[in-house]
Amino acid sequence: MTPERATEKRLIEIIRRAAARGPGVRVGIGDDCAVLEPDPGGLLLATTDLLIEDVHFRRRWAEPADLGWKSLAVNLSDIAAMGGRPRWALVALACPEATSVEEAEAFFEGALALASEHAVAVVGGDTSASPRGWIVNVTLLGEAPRAPVLRSTARSGDVIAVTGSLGRAAAGLALLERGAAPAGIPADTLADLTAAHLRPQPRIGEGRWLAAAGAVTAMIDLSDGLATDLGHIAEESSIGARVGLDRVPVDAGTRAVAPALGCDALAWATGGGEDYELLLTCEPGAFARLADGLLAATGTRLTAIGEMVPAADGVRYTDAGGREVAVGPGFEHFVTGRARG
Amino acid sequence: MTPERATEKRLIEIIRRAAARGPGVRVGIGDDCAVLEPDPGGLLLATTDLLIEDVHFRRRWAEPADLGWKSLAVNLSDIAAMGGRPRWALVALACPEATSVEEAEAFFEGALALASEHAVAVVGGDTSASPRGWIVNVTLLGEAPRAPVLRSTARSGDVIAVTGSLGRAAAGLALLERGAAPAGIPADTLADLTAAHLRPQPRIGEGRWLAAAGAVTAMIDLSDGLATDLGHIAEESSIGARVGLDRVPVDAGTRAVAPALGCDALAWATGGGEDYELLLTCEPGAFARLADGLLAATGTRLTAIGEMVPAADGVRYTDAGGREVAVGPGFEHFVTGRARG
Repeated sequence: MTPERATEKRLIEIIRRAAARGPGVRVGIGDDCAVLEPDPGGLLLATTDLLIEDVHFRRRWAEPADLGWKSLAVNLSDIAAMGGRPRWALVALACPEATSVEEAEAFFEGALALASEHAVAVVGGDTSASPRGWIVNVTLLGEAPRAPVLRSTARSGDVIAVTGSLGRAAAGLALLERGAAPAGIPADTLADLTAAHLRPQPRIGEGRWLAAAGAVTAMIDLSDGLATDLGHIAEESSIGARVGLDRVPVDAGTRAVAPALGCDALAWATGGGEDYELLLTCEPGAFARLADGLLAATGTRLTAIGEMVPAADGVRYTDAGGREVAVGPGFEHFVTGRARG
Repeated sequence: MTPERATEKRLIEIIRRAAARGPGVRVGIGDDCAVLEPDPGGLLLATTDLLIEDVHFRRRWAEPADLGWKSLAVNLSDIAAMGGRPRWALVALACPEATSVEEAEAFFEGALALASEHAVAVVGGDTSASPRGWIVNVTLLGEAPRAPVLRSTARSGDVIAVTGSLGRAAAGLALLERGAAPAGIPADTLADLTAAHLRPQPRIGEGRWLAAAGAVTAMIDLSDGLATDLGHIAEESSIGARVGLDRVPVDAGTRAVAPALGCDALAWATGGGEDYELLLTCEPGAFARLADGLLAATGTRLTAIGEMVPAADGVRYTDAGGREVAVGPGFEHFVTGRARG
């Protein structure tokens, strides 16, 4: 039996079922616009991300449900980086004619699984045919904290710190691209790494806690990789940075997998991208309080990896012996020429 | 000399130049999220539209500047249909590797030309490579009037009315698809019709005036065509409709061009789609006041074309003699299988 095709009518039914009427939603999907009720007097956060098959993901290993999850996750991570509270999502999906109803439903189920974890309501969207591959655009709206944490406000002398551990998503991608798992790696490590690529966990709770803690001077999410994203903070803040590569928290599973794939775990951690951890700068005297407080509040580690320095010193990476090391660029798309902005 | 390629860096420069810091913009493009300042206590409108090459437009005739304009116009039209005031846009653009800087700049110039007409600030976006064709997603945020006009609130006995005249966009598309202009049609008619397809004028001022006038019971923008969009009002309001086809305001240029192309002007007007006029229902006693007032305030005509009727009577179209006429569906994409939601 051929699976039922996801016609326009069916897609709209699916997206309507996905749409929740939650707090702050006066009108959801089904009219020309969503009508939303932001907190009076509050600041609004808005971010949008376009994900395109064979540029940002491969259908060979990314199931529709993974794609739905990830398309929401990358936007949630942008809200996390401002210290915000996510509220409402608009989800636009274009898929090829051969797409089944089951696949389209799985996409929205994946998106909703993560949305509901963060009390986000899907309030709008668009559906279309695609002449080639899946195309997803998610716009996420949220509430800003009283003082949203920007990229442009780091100061010389600030400590540079990162949540969690790095390199997992790049290791997961390498495993998925390879297909067969290398021998001798525990199954739970393989599952953890591939999940890090397919279903990243945005650091919403961590971002809100850090923004409220008061001493965080700048923050960004690690979507393009440490080297690229620290470069953004340095450039936007008109300042330099020095990072001790021996201080970068490289994930243990990533270290275990890298040699088996002939790869360098540290290069994944600094250049791999898509870890969706938070990279921040803070007042030097506040780091210990932030690290202890974040661990207690969320269970997530905060690791100091360097310091911001005067602009004239540039952005530099050093090894354990203090020697400068060249660090490569961040996440590269499958299609070259341009990366995600 | 080969034209300069629109690399990631150049695209981000272009989108940053396009981004205005306007009223209500605390942080624009350049951080993880835009930070916006909605009017305290107001309702927020949000809408998103995905436009894909060879589904929604053809690059054979749509220049990048047209595409930029139209991607904003279709979203503005959704805000117009709620009676809202557009404020902020997020623009995501993916284009093929061969795209030049000039083309990417022209896209944003086209979008900004229309944005500035309506005091909309571009506050966010995303850029990416595309493995095939141009892909654009625009999300538009706006302020709702005190009582946003929905699709679902039409009542039996209400007058059905439409702004402007219909069929121009379909006539323009037919002309563009044909290539050579038919003989005997004045150049300004041809220019008007093709512009209607390439650079539609959303009815923002009209929508705001109508929503404020008080007697409009339901409203929608004509993106999919009269037959489809009236069907939406009827379905969402759980009600029927009767339209006199002889009362539908078919554009004069459209009437002039149709025979030369072997087409039916009325079919374009009822099924062509993309006219981005407003279709509304109003209290029967209020129509004359609305039509006179709208003309005086905006210069735009409002034409009564029928009445809402009990649900049991369904949605029917009649000719001048009162005989029922079958009316075809609305706008069809170039790629079949699914249309815009």
